[in-house]
Amino acid sequence: MTISISPIGIVKNSRLAVEDDHWGDVVSIIKLDERFSEESLAHIADFSHAEVVFYFDRVDEQKIETGARHPRNNPNWPKIGIFAQRGKNRPNRLGVTVVRIVGQSGRNLTVEGLDAIDGTPVLDIKPVMREFLPRSEVRQPDWATELMKDYWD
Amino acid sequence: MTISISPIGIVKNSRLAVEDDHWGDVVSIIKLDERFSEESLAHIADFSHAEVVFYFDRVDEQKIETGARHPRNNPNWPKIGIFAQRGKNRPNRLGVTVVRIVGQSGRNLTVEGLDAIDGTPVLDIKPVMREFLPRSEVRQPDWATELMKDYWD
Repeated sequence: MTISISPIGIVKNSRLAVEDDHWGDVVSIIKLDERFSEESLAHIADFSHAEVVFYFDRVDEQKIETGARHPRNNPNWPKIGIFAQRGKNRPNRLGVTVVRIVGQSGRNLTVEGLDAIDGTPVLDIKPVMREFLPRSEVRQPDWATELMKDYWD
Repeated sequence: MTISISPIGIVKNSRLAVEDDHWGDVVSIIKLDERFSEESLAHIADFSHAEVVFYFDRVDEQKIETGARHPRNNPNWPKIGIFAQRGKNRPNRLGVTVVRIVGQSGRNLTVEGLDAIDGTPVLDIKPVMREFLPRSEVRQPDWATELMKDYWD
């Protein structure tokens, strides 16, 4: 079974290189495709945050991991299944990130903290609702906390 | 631009009908495709929660909304842009939900609180890391809180 997806828009920002860290301050404009009217974003700014689904289009198909690997190829961390980490070299190359909504104007949505480089195709935007956040205590292994140390800084 | 996606697995659970509410107690098994070894899930149970990306395959293409509509067709709520709501009749038909991890065995991942019916194609699984949750206060409009009232109950 193959599913065909068409990007709904594109990321515009100042991040041109694929880098691991320091995404917190990055402001991006998501420019919706002309197929969509500005109505498709109506009332989005009543939410503080949105979830952006995007496509890691710069990842080479041959680099996609289907088993386990050291996150960031760091041998100090255990070999972790690709579905137990958030690395970009993953089957289907889908990224999902919660961003802060800065504002909306026409078909442009301005957001802060989107960890995607300039030109990245956007596949969906959803509002963050409190009820869709974890409903019980979040637990994670030490390697994940270490890996994320400078991610947003 | 068209992107080809292949499901990584399928949802198995007791929910056969498309319904809006009462998803909190639903236990599902995500059965990974044979292309993947159990290594692809290695160490996932060190996390309490995962984010599941899935495909609303039962949504008729003609029903997809590209502008704004009343959530759940309820005229008491305002007309909301499709990207400012989480309804299933959306461009690209992508769902994203945080679930609680119950356990993993081989290529099967058992989760609680996945709001997808039996047979739904799964496109990705990512671990929930605290650092990927909203990093500032979450604000949402009243209609969203009302709509979610019985969603997990």
